[in-house]
Amino acid sequence: MPAKKAEKAIVLLSGGLDSSTCLYWAKSRGYSCRALCISYGQRHSRELESARKIAKLAGVPLTHVKLGLPWLAVSSLVNSKKKLPDTALSKIGSGGIPGTYVPGRNLLFASLAVSWADAENASAVILGPNALDYSGYPDCRPEFYRALSAAVSKGTAGGAKIKILTPLIRMSKAQIARLARKLRVPLEYTWTCYAGGARPCGHCDACKLRGKGFAEAGFADPALK
Amino acid sequence: MPAKKAEKAIVLLSGGLDSSTCLYWAKSRGYSCRALCISYGQRHSRELESARKIAKLAGVPLTHVKLGLPWLAVSSLVNSKKKLPDTALSKIGSGGIPGTYVPGRNLLFASLAVSWADAENASAVILGPNALDYSGYPDCRPEFYRALSAAVSKGTAGGAKIKILTPLIRMSKAQIARLARKLRVPLEYTWTCYAGGARPCGHCDACKLRGKGFAEAGFADPALK
Repeated sequence: MPAKKAEKAIVLLSGGLDSSTCLYWAKSRGYSCRALCISYGQRHSRELESARKIAKLAGVPLTHVKLGLPWLAVSSLVNSKKKLPDTALSKIGSGGIPGTYVPGRNLLFASLAVSWADAENASAVILGPNALDYSGYPDCRPEFYRALSAAVSKGTAGGAKIKILTPLIRMSKAQIARLARKLRVPLEYTWTCYAGGARPCGHCDACKLRGKGFAEAGFADPALK
Repeated sequence: MPAKKAEKAIVLLSGGLDSSTCLYWAKSRGYSCRALCISYGQRHSRELESARKIAKLAGVPLTHVKLGLPWLAVSSLVNSKKKLPDTALSKIGSGGIPGTYVPGRNLLFASLAVSWADAENASAVILGPNALDYSGYPDCRPEFYRALSAAVSKGTAGGAKIKILTPLIRMSKAQIARLARKLRVPLEYTWTCYAGGARPCGHCDACKLRGKGFAEAGFADPALK
């Protein structure tokens, strides 16, 4: 059911496959979208350029927030002195919480979007966590978002009006790739790789999962052309 | 019951009466504390000097995080073009959510502290919301913190180990003033006033509530000497 024309949504946009698909999903549902892009010292800051490009192509205003949080250096996704995992595909998600986990990241990101939603009288915060293909991150699980929704309904002016939507959370990467193509997401501009290079490394866990997703979806990844 | 010596706590410290009392309360419970002070464009940035001074006197390391969140300009606590409320004392808390409400602020602040706690393997996040004397803010209610604790237990590496403690939430301002004196909080350095002047204005809702608290507690406010 499409949202009413006036309903606003804050969409967390990193510039990756999942969040870009979320943005186009939100548009397809009729939401008036604002994109929120967050720098937190991630080594793959290359993704921010993708976020800008995708927001522009989608015709959605983007706000870029920079966080300087020194304690995030414990994560190999932030601290370039730490080694990124190069896990065998079959083992990804099976070894507990990976070193790329950024402490409390999705709680923090969702809170920033909720703050904006509460200020704008928006009715949805939309983000793209995915539990199925990557179960190692505690902040990508459906039970976390259910509990967070309850907290948001108690601790904001908007209250229960502000919904937290995670449309991809139970999808496989192949399903996400297919949905992205259906929604005409400009996949060629999305950025998923954890490493900070000019092109996707192909070795990090994120590259491997994306590669598997497109392979299973049965079409080539436009970002690799 | 005092916490074990090794347990760490992240304490949100604004430099006001409540958060300063929380810091000394945490120390009295045996926590190894780190203070988190957040700039978010508040017009009373004067309180940050108080936070630094109090952390120093308490012998606690302080991390200062600056947030640039343009949407917070809807709040009169951030936007100096908006008028601060000058509510009759008997009416404070009875008129719905006041214009000084900062959208999603305590959710966001708690999330930042939870992120740090998760990175540091800390077992507590401590903050000083107060429901009794000021019921107008949705993010100062016990039910919000109960729900947020549930979310944190699902969405972090630390999980249920990370407790969110709000020791003042059911206290009156008079009870807080008495507790602060008992804990030897350096009250003369705390800053509560919403206005950005050199001395407390005495008119804003925060000044009025603080004044009422000390009057009821039966001793003079050391910050007014």
